[in-house]
Amino acid sequence: MDIAYREAARWLMEHDGFLILTHKRPDGDTIGCAVALCHALRSQGKTAWLLPNEDATTLFTPYLGGVLAPADFVPAHVVAVDIASQGLFPKSAEGYRDKVELCIDHHPSNEGYAQYNCVEADKAACGEIICALIKEWGPLTPQTALPLYVAVSTDTGCFMYSNTSPNTHRVAAELMDTGIDAAAVNKRHFRTKSYVRLRLEGRIMETMELHDEGRIALASITLADMEELHAREEDAEDIAAFTGQLEGVQTAVTIREVAPGECKLSVRTGAELNASKVCALLGGGGHAAASGCTVMGSVADAKAAIMGAIRQVQDNG
Amino acid sequence: MDIAYREAARWLMEHDGFLILTHKRPDGDTIGCAVALCHALRSQGKTAWLLPNEDATTLFTPYLGGVLAPADFVPAHVVAVDIASQGLFPKSAEGYRDKVELCIDHHPSNEGYAQYNCVEADKAACGEIICALIKEWGPLTPQTALPLYVAVSTDTGCFMYSNTSPNTHRVAAELMDTGIDAAAVNKRHFRTKSYVRLRLEGRIMETMELHDEGRIALASITLADMEELHAREEDAEDIAAFTGQLEGVQTAVTIREVAPGECKLSVRTGAELNASKVCALLGGGGHAAASGCTVMGSVADAKAAIMGAIRQVQDNG
Repeated sequence: MDIAYREAARWLMEHDGFLILTHKRPDGDTIGCAVALCHALRSQGKTAWLLPNEDATTLFTPYLGGVLAPADFVPAHVVAVDIASQGLFPKSAEGYRDKVELCIDHHPSNEGYAQYNCVEADKAACGEIICALIKEWGPLTPQTALPLYVAVSTDTGCFMYSNTSPNTHRVAAELMDTGIDAAAVNKRHFRTKSYVRLRLEGRIMETMELHDEGRIALASITLADMEELHAREEDAEDIAAFTGQLEGVQTAVTIREVAPGECKLSVRTGAELNASKVCALLGGGGHAAASGCTVMGSVADAKAAIMGAIRQVQDNG
Repeated sequence: MDIAYREAARWLMEHDGFLILTHKRPDGDTIGCAVALCHALRSQGKTAWLLPNEDATTLFTPYLGGVLAPADFVPAHVVAVDIASQGLFPKSAEGYRDKVELCIDHHPSNEGYAQYNCVEADKAACGEIICALIKEWGPLTPQTALPLYVAVSTDTGCFMYSNTSPNTHRVAAELMDTGIDAAAVNKRHFRTKSYVRLRLEGRIMETMELHDEGRIALASITLADMEELHAREEDAEDIAAFTGQLEGVQTAVTIREVAPGECKLSVRTGAELNASKVCALLGGGGHAAASGCTVMGSVADAKAAIMGAIRQVQDNG
């Protein structure tokens, strides 16, 4: 059943003994929402805990003090935040797949798997919904505002991405009104990069090929690069965005050698080229502005293949 | 005379024929404020122009359509926005140094050189003041909101720096309410980097030295690097901030070889080391967290000198 955030707030006040679930490979939004909801419920005299999530990285450790459920906690009610589908439950939550009574989420793709589903797909972050919900019970406090600021800022790339709305900024203002150190959160999440990640970005720049007076960029990371720089998978995460920020580049191709003789390609394009058409020629697909495909062969093979596909789409439209 | 923004708004309505000045090496705040004020004055039936600024880079060209004063424009009144002192006037404005009637600014260091000075030092961007001022005359429009969004977002690093306040976010929300494409502004100003700049950053990472298990980073750019990468001075601007974002690094030293045998050093430190004390040992100075000095010698000499100074301060406090 679909419900509004006010009904969700009421339902929570009518019950007690909550376990709050976060999604697989948790980000700032799911963690921030869960932590804020937990503190807000406790401030209303309720018992509430977060289910420990085995995927959580140390990036979020500072926010998790005192909220992780002890192993012997037996919940009366299970709540999911920012989890669009049961397939996105972490391993630790598998036993709760069919036991979620309330799901609060902002993904348009939410599958409505809970008994009560509170989904607002127009919100940039689930944190915006949780903020409105807990204000039904009383004013924001630094304890609830800080994790919600983490939620809202990380899901919008610090208010930079196109999902950022006027409401996002209004929520950020209200959270900051409580006196939280938002600048410290920004420093931690947006102004800090690992040595290995920066070496990897440097390597990409050293080996980048430009074509058509710089309008096409071919970036690549080989298995040898990854090994030499002691890079892990997470160091290469979203590396296509790095290539995509290059000034004047209309078509940014990022090639990852993922196994000997196997390359994954990410293609980002501007209005002048359809990335989906380019990747379709190599058996891949996606959106007009961002698509992907796999080429069996070396990085050199992948470069030749993608340039061939780009030329074909340029010539034939 | 110090005046509040409401008085400034009234004064502007009582006069006509305005020339608006921006500061030397103009940034998004001074340009955005000047453009927004110009459009807002015109919407009230006034004649208003911006004085062309010889330092303005092409980054801001999109916002300047139709607002630059023709050579034969004779102003009746001169207004300065975001200019803290007469020393910050661009060359083109030198004839107006003692003719500014109204100055609107947010710098605590504002010298009060105008007849009427409207200074709000608690604002992150001068754009926040201009926003309040032009709302005295009527609602925001996309034409005034877009340059003001440029002003507010660029002066806060897209709401990332510690100067960002709840008011900054509230202003951003109001500006976005007009329907402007804030994401396009963010893309242009925060998600675009030049090829040369990224090559330079990559070179820094390739040649960086780490000491004390990665707590001290020594980064350097040689004259040969600059030449090989065809880098201009502006490509190396604020390069110390790049080194400063390294995860786990407490002391970030950035060495620029500025002439054969002459290196400029920038030192950024955390709480465990006083950068000012370190640089004082080499004849430089600054703040506890960010200081600088010059070493006559090669990059290798500069590295040896700064490591010696760091060790001395570490040992003696």
